[in-house]
Amino acid sequence: MIIVMKNSAGQAALDAVEARVHAEGLETRVLPGEHKTVIAVIGTRPPELLQQLERMPHVEATIPISEPFKLAARTDTRERSVIQVGGVEIGNGSVTVMAGPCTVESPDQMAATAQHVASAGAQLLRGGAYKPRSSPYSFQGMGIPGLQLLAEAREATGLPVITEVLDPRQVEFVVDYADVLQIGTRNAQNYPLLCEVGACRKPVLLKRGMGNTIDEWLMCAEYILAAGNPDVMLCERGIRTFETSSRFTLDLNAIPLLRRRTHLPIVVDPSQGTGHWYMVHDMALASVAAGADGIIVEVHPEPETALIDGQQSLSFRHFSELMARLQPMAAALGRPLGAPVGV
Amino acid sequence: MIIVMKNSAGQAALDAVEARVHAEGLETRVLPGEHKTVIAVIGTRPPELLQQLERMPHVEATIPISEPFKLAARTDTRERSVIQVGGVEIGNGSVTVMAGPCTVESPDQMAATAQHVASAGAQLLRGGAYKPRSSPYSFQGMGIPGLQLLAEAREATGLPVITEVLDPRQVEFVVDYADVLQIGTRNAQNYPLLCEVGACRKPVLLKRGMGNTIDEWLMCAEYILAAGNPDVMLCERGIRTFETSSRFTLDLNAIPLLRRRTHLPIVVDPSQGTGHWYMVHDMALASVAAGADGIIVEVHPEPETALIDGQQSLSFRHFSELMARLQPMAAALGRPLGAPVGV
Amino acid sequence: MIIVMKNSAGQAALDAVEARVHAEGLETRVLPGEHKTVIAVIGTRPPELLQQLERMPHVEATIPISEPFKLAARTDTRERSVIQVGGVEIGNGSVTVMAGPCTVESPDQMAATAQHVASAGAQLLRGGAYKPRSSPYSFQGMGIPGLQLLAEAREATGLPVITEVLDPRQVEFVVDYADVLQIGTRNAQNYPLLCEVGACRKPVLLKRGMGNTIDEWLMCAEYILAAGNPDVMLCERGIRTFETSSRFTLDLNAIPLLRRRTHLPIVVDPSQGTGHWYMVHDMALASVAAGADGIIVEVHPEPETALIDGQQSLSFRHFSELMARLQPMAAALGRPLGAPVGV
Amino acid sequence: MIIVMKNSAGQAALDAVEARVHAEGLETRVLPGEHKTVIAVIGTRPPELLQQLERMPHVEATIPISEPFKLAARTDTRERSVIQVGGVEIGNGSVTVMAGPCTVESPDQMAATAQHVASAGAQLLRGGAYKPRSSPYSFQGMGIPGLQLLAEAREATGLPVITEVLDPRQVEFVVDYADVLQIGTRNAQNYPLLCEVGACRKPVLLKRGMGNTIDEWLMCAEYILAAGNPDVMLCERGIRTFETSSRFTLDLNAIPLLRRRTHLPIVVDPSQGTGHWYMVHDMALASVAAGADGIIVEVHPEPETALIDGQQSLSFRHFSELMARLQPMAAALGRPLGAPVGV
Repeated sequence: MIIVMKNSAGQAALDAVEARVHAEGLETRVLPGEHKTVIAVIGTRPPELLQQLERMPHVEATIPISEPFKLAARTDTRERSVIQVGGVEIGNGSVTVMAGPCTVESPDQMAATAQHVASAGAQLLRGGAYKPRSSPYSFQGMGIPGLQLLAEAREATGLPVITEVLDPRQVEFVVDYADVLQIGTRNAQNYPLLCEVGACRKPVLLKRGMGNTIDEWLMCAEYILAAGNPDVMLCERGIRTFETSSRFTLDLNAIPLLRRRTHLPIVVDPSQGTGHWYMVHDMALASVAAGADGIIVEVHPEPETALIDGQQSLSFRHFSELMARLQPMAAALGRPLGAPVGV
Repeated sequence: MIIVMKNSAGQAALDAVEARVHAEGLETRVLPGEHKTVIAVIGTRPPELLQQLERMPHVEATIPISEPFKLAARTDTRERSVIQVGGVEIGNGSVTVMAGPCTVESPDQMAATAQHVASAGAQLLRGGAYKPRSSPYSFQGMGIPGLQLLAEAREATGLPVITEVLDPRQVEFVVDYADVLQIGTRNAQNYPLLCEVGACRKPVLLKRGMGNTIDEWLMCAEYILAAGNPDVMLCERGIRTFETSSRFTLDLNAIPLLRRRTHLPIVVDPSQGTGHWYMVHDMALASVAAGADGIIVEVHPEPETALIDGQQSLSFRHFSELMARLQPMAAALGRPLGAPVGV
Repeated sequence: MIIVMKNSAGQAALDAVEARVHAEGLETRVLPGEHKTVIAVIGTRPPELLQQLERMPHVEATIPISEPFKLAARTDTRERSVIQVGGVEIGNGSVTVMAGPCTVESPDQMAATAQHVASAGAQLLRGGAYKPRSSPYSFQGMGIPGLQLLAEAREATGLPVITEVLDPRQVEFVVDYADVLQIGTRNAQNYPLLCEVGACRKPVLLKRGMGNTIDEWLMCAEYILAAGNPDVMLCERGIRTFETSSRFTLDLNAIPLLRRRTHLPIVVDPSQGTGHWYMVHDMALASVAAGADGIIVEVHPEPETALIDGQQSLSFRHFSELMARLQPMAAALGRPLGAPVGV
Repeated sequence: MIIVMKNSAGQAALDAVEARVHAEGLETRVLPGEHKTVIAVIGTRPPELLQQLERMPHVEATIPISEPFKLAARTDTRERSVIQVGGVEIGNGSVTVMAGPCTVESPDQMAATAQHVASAGAQLLRGGAYKPRSSPYSFQGMGIPGLQLLAEAREATGLPVITEVLDPRQVEFVVDYADVLQIGTRNAQNYPLLCEVGACRKPVLLKRGMGNTIDEWLMCAEYILAAGNPDVMLCERGIRTFETSSRFTLDLNAIPLLRRRTHLPIVVDPSQGTGHWYMVHDMALASVAAGADGIIVEVHPEPETALIDGQQSLSFRHFSELMARLQPMAAALGRPLGAPVGV
């Protein structure tokens, strides 16, 4: 940690700050500058010390140096993690495609979609049974019957299933149906929920909070890792910016930044991240080109009747076209699409 | 709802859209323009129809007209709500000051702070027993012993108590200690939690999600109202913007906007909304001048040792000075500070 | 400057960085931490060194310590500046009200508005003769005839005049008509224009760029100051954020931050900063309560026919009401409205 | 245009709004809804009418329907524009690479860089002679001697040259040296400058303002087009968001959105859009995968000594590697890299 003192700081202020730091058992080095004096603190500080020192007289700012996420950080010994889901490996250099409806609506819709995305080459099946809706008057998901339909679709296609949990009380039974638990953007900083999925033995796909920095997001992952679950995937899904002609701004800069800072696999959701079906193809390709380990896209047999998010769902034909465009590009990048499950 | 068709839309596309709308039992009016045709839809539409129509061929955009929050909306018959907490009325035209430590740390800290803020004129006592921390390694709050200290402080001072809930499983016992339940910014869209506080009989202070628009925030309030709890206060606490020299950007524009659109009382948190103790005075005054019904501020006996958020906490002396600056200004605005409890 | 080395940095990388710094004639102190080594640089660095060092192998980040704006910075010897415009002092503790139409439209409109705002207590008269319009097809201002109407209005009322310049080629003749030159938000980083107004002898009102941080804004002021013009006022007018129910987000946090960092007077524009006339009153009061030295508001005899920005202009009656609300509040804050000119 | 009336609007308010619209020679259709009445306006409205109507009593909002940019808009007859620069075609389906130093520093630096990027396959040469610097104390560019070095490099390599103009007074002589004029992000809404480049006969690369929406950006292009210059390329270079671990947030969503709305070619600047050299490769690939017509990247013989933006410049080796990664990916997408000039 670096402590920047104000121009006005005299010896007494410096002494007080040093005494405060020494009381924590840490060392200091005072570096007088031309205008401002800086105090460097050496040793592992308690997390609250940064803010406490900022409150002392004549302190202008405090600057942390070491990353606060110990388990999520990329290190010399742990370059990249590979996560196993059923027979699928995510993060091994290939590109994993996860697809399915935004929400489970009916047996026919689920079965047909699962069949289509499997045959087109998807490796995981997505589908929501519990949906966080901005309006209390909107359809909130089928709940347990929806989970059962997901399990049946897995049976029929062999695709592992990914589905969202909203409530810490849901985790204990959703794990019985799902292969991957998804934490949505609105719950990215729902710490009791993160602890609950951290305590279970299923991989987690952690979406970025729409108002969260990359640092905060990695700290959310750290909650799950610290609770004992090592299998966390990060999913960029768009952030809130002043640009509103897309529903969110997909922050693909996050991909190279994350690859530099964390060993966790990185997935992108171009459906949520754009909000318009006609942008999904281009942004799916861009995500893979930028280095994402996988993408997750919404597919619906009849988007114009979808109960949720039809405007950003691909039809079956569009999804097939996406796979056809993605395949040669991924191959040219030396990152083949993952082999279909069971092959 | 208004449906804007693309330039390219022919009669067949118009007919298909109209047929889709009629199938929902709604009426249409087609309005040909110079470049684009617009279809107006009359009647109460199912919530998903907007997105479904956007997915149809040759539809450029759909624009909702009516507000989606029915219970939170200001109407001719319900101009402003007044919320009763103990003997305190919030929203009656006076200015309510809520103050106390960010987090309950010890019996002495809590008792001394409660005593000070009460004697300086605060009307509610704040204090967190469950804290949503960005790091899993930081102090997470005292839990139930903290709630007990809050209850003792209420006993000693007569001030009603406001405290945060993070987890739907906490609501049933926190209500036994608290007079107002606070939903924090990270849980603003935690819908199971909103439903849970909506089902209890205590007033709720709903903070704005740091990445949420005013419309989304009002829909969060609608969740609580729709679950049966009419006593919701909205608390502006800063949003995420590109400006990082303050911790958040306090959006005081929200005050006149909310007064126009909702009957719910409006509170501002200048401690969270700035992140620096030396900005709290000015922004507290600004909040009241902009029309807030109350403010909530963090106060600590010794901010430089506070376990959480010391950098934005007022000392006792600073809090007294704030009250001394606030009192004549509020009086000049014709909005006196609320009478102390029990007087 | 602080240089943070990566975990991976060995002795050779450290030596190379130190050698690079020494080559600039600067001193270094190496501070080994538990994980990362930090190198403190002592002395006045050339401006480009920060970015150059960031590019060296095994450097993780470089952190500047001293403020880059020397002339704009608040110091022990120069606490606050007071700017003289005609008989008006801005920044002396009183509150200065600047008012007038968004744009000069006609002799009658200008004369009537000037008369009204003067009699209601405004101290400066605003009005645009050159307007930066988002569309090339919109009214771009009256130009020189507009400047003449402003000068006539000054003659009639005694109010000094503030008007915008867009183009470095306009400065030399606009100074003949105006008492204060305004730089608009779209030109906040138009450096040739800043240099041109810096070379003239008239006070400048520098609006904040809608996408600019406070640091960048102060550097824009530094351009004017460094060009030789000491009379710069800063005007907060709203920034771009994800909240679009107001036209911009008025960042009142900027007021206490600026007061801490610069000696320049601070003005707020609640008309531009909200975009809706019905928000102007509340945000004007809030600006003054937060510590602004002045406000600038748009007033029009008949806002519903205004050629520009009618939706955010106050009518004569609304402006009089604003002054009536502002006066007692400012007095209660110990900051009276400035005395009318010539009194 | 659609006018939404408030719930409170009675017949008199409706009549007044209709009368106001009819006075402009436009037609109206009144559509009573369940809660709110909507008035549709048919015909070409004067640009200011939208804001004027918003100011009338009982009007809640006005919503424009037609796009305000007539020349920039994609239409049935003009799907995509192709721009000719020297022998290079931009927007013809191939991928154009523009490369060179951020700024011209010396004859050796310029000659070596031009030679390297030409031999590695770049088709245009970039280099700044006039630089908009955030600090008045930083290097501001070589000016005319820099332009001469650019012209010599074109002579030596055959690559057309792109360089920035900052000031309307520069345009008349910069056109003598440059093949493409660049408008930077800080001048995106500098309308006198846009008019000046609109009046010249050289293609323009218009960067997006860092705080501008896509709509505003297209209106900036419209200024140039309306002034008579049809050869405008749009360049996405990152926007301001709350995420600060990259210098800006590169908004690749803009690519599919722009392709839908405008016929102008689209270029991406991954150097500016990330601010870190180690992110440039990935984001350059992503830009092409998302559908960009070209990219523009900063290259320097020795980035750690660059006078400007070394931290985001590629070394010669890195640039060659980028071309080697880009070539097979572009080919797989069916969009070959443009043929080198003169071949």
